[in-house]
Amino acid sequence: MHSPAAKVSGYVVLMIVQIIFLVLFWLFVRYEKTALPLAIDAEDAGSANEHVSKYPQFQDIQVMIFIGFGFLMTFLRKYGYSATGFTLFMAALVVQWAVLMKGFLHMEGGKISLSLENIIDADIAAAVPLISMGALLGRTTPIQLLCMSVFEVALFAANEYLALHVFSICDCGGSITVHAFGAYFGLAVALMLRPASDQNETGKLEGASYTSDIFAMIGTTFLWVYWPSFNSVLADGAGGERAILNTFLSLAAATVTTFVVSALVSHENKLDMVHVQNSTLAGGVAVGTVCNLLLGAHGAVLIGIIAGTVSVLGYRYLTPWMTANLRLHDTCGVHNLHGMPALISAIASAIYASMATVGEYQSELQDIFPAMVGTNGTETKIMGGLGRNATSQAGYQLFGIAVTLLIAIGGGILTGAVLKYTNFRNLKKDEHHQDEHYWEVPAAENKEE
Amino acid sequence: MHSPAAKVSGYVVLMIVQIIFLVLFWLFVRYEKTALPLAIDAEDAGSANEHVSKYPQFQDIQVMIFIGFGFLMTFLRKYGYSATGFTLFMAALVVQWAVLMKGFLHMEGGKISLSLENIIDADIAAAVPLISMGALLGRTTPIQLLCMSVFEVALFAANEYLALHVFSICDCGGSITVHAFGAYFGLAVALMLRPASDQNETGKLEGASYTSDIFAMIGTTFLWVYWPSFNSVLADGAGGERAILNTFLSLAAATVTTFVVSALVSHENKLDMVHVQNSTLAGGVAVGTVCNLLLGAHGAVLIGIIAGTVSVLGYRYLTPWMTANLRLHDTCGVHNLHGMPALISAIASAIYASMATVGEYQSELQDIFPAMVGTNGTETKIMGGLGRNATSQAGYQLFGIAVTLLIAIGGGILTGAVLKYTNFRNLKKDEHHQDEHYWEVPAAENKEE
Amino acid sequence: MHSPAAKVSGYVVLMIVQIIFLVLFWLFVRYEKTALPLAIDAEDAGSANEHVSKYPQFQDIQVMIFIGFGFLMTFLRKYGYSATGFTLFMAALVVQWAVLMKGFLHMEGGKISLSLENIIDADIAAAVPLISMGALLGRTTPIQLLCMSVFEVALFAANEYLALHVFSICDCGGSITVHAFGAYFGLAVALMLRPASDQNETGKLEGASYTSDIFAMIGTTFLWVYWPSFNSVLADGAGGERAILNTFLSLAAATVTTFVVSALVSHENKLDMVHVQNSTLAGGVAVGTVCNLLLGAHGAVLIGIIAGTVSVLGYRYLTPWMTANLRLHDTCGVHNLHGMPALISAIASAIYASMATVGEYQSELQDIFPAMVGTNGTETKIMGGLGRNATSQAGYQLFGIAVTLLIAIGGGILTGAVLKYTNFRNLKKDEHHQDEHYWEVPAAENKEE
Repeated sequence: MHSPAAKVSGYVVLMIVQIIFLVLFWLFVRYEKTALPLAIDAEDAGSANEHVSKYPQFQDIQVMIFIGFGFLMTFLRKYGYSATGFTLFMAALVVQWAVLMKGFLHMEGGKISLSLENIIDADIAAAVPLISMGALLGRTTPIQLLCMSVFEVALFAANEYLALHVFSICDCGGSITVHAFGAYFGLAVALMLRPASDQNETGKLEGASYTSDIFAMIGTTFLWVYWPSFNSVLADGAGGERAILNTFLSLAAATVTTFVVSALVSHENKLDMVHVQNSTLAGGVAVGTVCNLLLGAHGAVLIGIIAGTVSVLGYRYLTPWMTANLRLHDTCGVHNLHGMPALISAIASAIYASMATVGEYQSELQDIFPAMVGTNGTETKIMGGLGRNATSQAGYQLFGIAVTLLIAIGGGILTGAVLKYTNFRNLKKDEHHQDEHYWEVPAAENKEE
Repeated sequence: MHSPAAKVSGYVVLMIVQIIFLVLFWLFVRYEKTALPLAIDAEDAGSANEHVSKYPQFQDIQVMIFIGFGFLMTFLRKYGYSATGFTLFMAALVVQWAVLMKGFLHMEGGKISLSLENIIDADIAAAVPLISMGALLGRTTPIQLLCMSVFEVALFAANEYLALHVFSICDCGGSITVHAFGAYFGLAVALMLRPASDQNETGKLEGASYTSDIFAMIGTTFLWVYWPSFNSVLADGAGGERAILNTFLSLAAATVTTFVVSALVSHENKLDMVHVQNSTLAGGVAVGTVCNLLLGAHGAVLIGIIAGTVSVLGYRYLTPWMTANLRLHDTCGVHNLHGMPALISAIASAIYASMATVGEYQSELQDIFPAMVGTNGTETKIMGGLGRNATSQAGYQLFGIAVTLLIAIGGGILTGAVLKYTNFRNLKKDEHHQDEHYWEVPAAENKEE
Repeated sequence: MHSPAAKVSGYVVLMIVQIIFLVLFWLFVRYEKTALPLAIDAEDAGSANEHVSKYPQFQDIQVMIFIGFGFLMTFLRKYGYSATGFTLFMAALVVQWAVLMKGFLHMEGGKISLSLENIIDADIAAAVPLISMGALLGRTTPIQLLCMSVFEVALFAANEYLALHVFSICDCGGSITVHAFGAYFGLAVALMLRPASDQNETGKLEGASYTSDIFAMIGTTFLWVYWPSFNSVLADGAGGERAILNTFLSLAAATVTTFVVSALVSHENKLDMVHVQNSTLAGGVAVGTVCNLLLGAHGAVLIGIIAGTVSVLGYRYLTPWMTANLRLHDTCGVHNLHGMPALISAIASAIYASMATVGEYQSELQDIFPAMVGTNGTETKIMGGLGRNATSQAGYQLFGIAVTLLIAIGGGILTGAVLKYTNFRNLKKDEHHQDEHYWEVPAAENKEE
């Protein structure tokens, strides 16, 4: 199965997928009214600009997806082409698929309305398989990634619809629907694709070189800097400003904590680049679900401190344990960067939801906890107690993360089984974490660096 | 002529150019009214903010010019100082020259009005010689680049004026006036500076190292991410939103296609970093001229698929053929990234223009195809048929690209002749693609990496 | 003192600092009204969006702080982990501290109001110790940097308050309060920590490798591109547009000049990457204080030419002299990038202030030179001559830089003395400029690269 023919057929399937997308775009997608010309005699209502005001944040998220994720994964010494290249390829594929999948769930008159909003949503969806890819980095073929992405994004769209529109949970920065989903889906796939027990040792290519570590810092810093945009892009008004402030403070606190804990638990008290590259970002994940709530600066900082601590300890103790005992090689440690911090975020959301009152959230209650707003009030539209109460909302938050975990892990196991037991080519141990099996690599370099 | 004295005189000329710019700024440039203080008793009309609303897009374009182009060209193993350094230097020189040259074509009362708009235009103009530089990368002196830039930008400004204001073609993202012009101008210069037939073999420095390829991906990803800003910055309202959406989808489709075609045509079906670095961006060029038209999502995706295919095939078959047969070393393959995709864009613009109707474009017809709007209508200002008709507009689009090619190639041949046959120092074969002839290079590194 | 125990105690102190921040946030910081939910019956005044309109510029500044400074300092061949990592760590620490320190100076009702404005200010404050760090790069422990940062930011906040609110100087881009302060504070610390006279030779690790130089260009280009955001973020309306235009033109002119002067004064007339990485940015510093004034394009270009020239000459002649004679190793040459250009900016501000008239600045005089506006005018609020006159304002500008230098140098000497003579661990000569004393470094790499 290592023959060129196997590769060729995979790429031909990919082309067919792209052409199916083309046909689906043609059949189902139309510009939204804001992106269409005004009638000659219409007065300019200026409504076109509403979407476009989110454009700078969209661009920040684009940088996170393409540069942030791409370069964060360049830390492997011989996998930089794949890290940046496959990120580009998967994101380009997934954004198209996400426009379609999420569009199908919100069609009007049988058509999907295309506006800037759709591609913001698509960019967020692209984060999901990229997170999962982190758990598998260097141990799959690009065609396996393609197949996983297509399946995962469909499931993600369904789960997100369930969580936000059926259970009405709050999840402003997507820690539950994006980070927890992507991380545990990826870990479940990695578990299915785990090596035989006699091949479980960690290869020397499963680490960084001095140069590749600095490339990875490009990813880290851009993710750090633009994370407030990711968390706040779907919030409005004052909630948007709080999302920015809370995310910023949580990241800052997680970063300081990461340095402390990394030095305290590492060999000879030296700092570990893996922690600095990843755990500094855990503050952004852990504050995600609650970033638009009234945490206060101290709430955001506290969440950041907890997230940084848990993340570094995860890298130091849990990941090696999972590798040794479950044969689960979480290459980028997505469990520590996305998985556990997302659980922290879900728990925090239950705590804060349990304390939410209409007196505190006023007119924003409707946006943030719509199910808590009563529908049969006559005097005021917003009225705590007629809808879901705070304790019940807290329960739904926990239910939301539980269902997300269930769907993610179930879907991941299923996907992993398909990738392993059907006709896909699986990489052999000695092909792991190396660009050269799928890329033309400059010959002389192999020895030199 | 390799004496320090020759270098010194070149740099002295450069300083004189900078001082001439200073004098021209002093004589001709004044702040526009929006950048001047309001009179004490004036009411704030808020008009200053109109320009400034484009500021985030301007910054995106800045990143494309300085980081995008600069790092895209770092792929050569020993030319990274020059790639990033000369990009910085040329862009800094050209933006000043472009403010002046484009300003002279739109003077009011003998003065150039300076506002954010001018420096957006200047940044776009800076792309032109940077594209040309890609065709020559590693085979010119910085002083030759300086001379080429000054001449090219003047010619670019004239051709753009002709195309947009005389022929009234649509070219929202500048594929005709910027990309085609820059690419064919650069190729013509490269043809003039082609090596003697006994020196035509490709040197080993004309390729990448593992590290330099990853540096180049920084350029690629930033260009990818911010390309929608480049294409949409000069569009307004709904047209601006369409420009963003179409560019995004075209890039995504071109990227997926690039991976497929690269794998199918490459040696052992391995992916080629040159294709991934460049052809993924061809979708942005190919959709440029038509990005604000009513393509629909499928139109944008189709253009992306075509562009990705053509670009990869160009790299795989056409570039080696041109190198072997015309001795035209297009170092970065600008013909495949900018040249042919721009031709596709021009052809697409003729096709879409030929189908444009006032019923479809409504109030935007005036912005997009101003020559199609009649001037002697009495009831409504916009009235198809009184002005140029759709077929005629399509013809003008083709005429626009033809004239652009003529001026670019003619100007490039002339410039190349000047660089070759007058007193400029030309690099010898063994000086090509190496930083060390113009830069202090750390000594120990020469062996190591 | 090189025992792990010493390290551990340092990191424990850092954790305590983070927890003190948490407590201070809890006690003193509350969201500003714009970041709180509107009352149910309130009408949306849209005021929340006012802050948020600065968000794209805030993000640009974030990139400058975290990517710009971080990567600019990666130029040392074996100090890339520290450059990017310690930048992340220090900035994350300082932004929290700056929110508190600057907040304490502007409390209302015993509370600090938290809004986007505060974190913009905090990001600007983060630049200050990062500039100082440049003067010390590779010669301090992270704990020394922590201690310096905490002390320096407090002093910075006090000096800035003095300069802007007591002396009422103009300093739109912060060249006096940020760049001069940070540079001379850092130089004073470096002077205190200078090596013994028998250990003054420059080590081979105090230079770049081919790869590290290209990493540093990432920092340079992002700083270049986003500098207009740094200078303009605190200006409004037309003044903001001028700040963008002037900064852009000054940077462009400084860049061209840097290439010329670098080639003219360097060995064999080759370009020097140190100049290209740093002096190209001197135009942004030198125009900082005056960037919102009516310089005209020629004024901005002239300032850029002077700054580029002075900066390159500083690197070429002054820095080696200071190293040899004062044993002051200014690793990044902050004196040439921040120090001297900031002095140029201060002098320029005195010149332009001395020519400022109410007829010229109209309604903006109040914003730019508030002390020049009379308070007992009855007919018009703005009236030159009743307040401070132009000559007097010019004098205050010079007084402002003089006081800033005094406080910065005094504070730096004091801080340096504390770092040197108290219980802090000082690095030995052979520990300088190397990551491996504080970071886990991939073993095999040490030889290879």
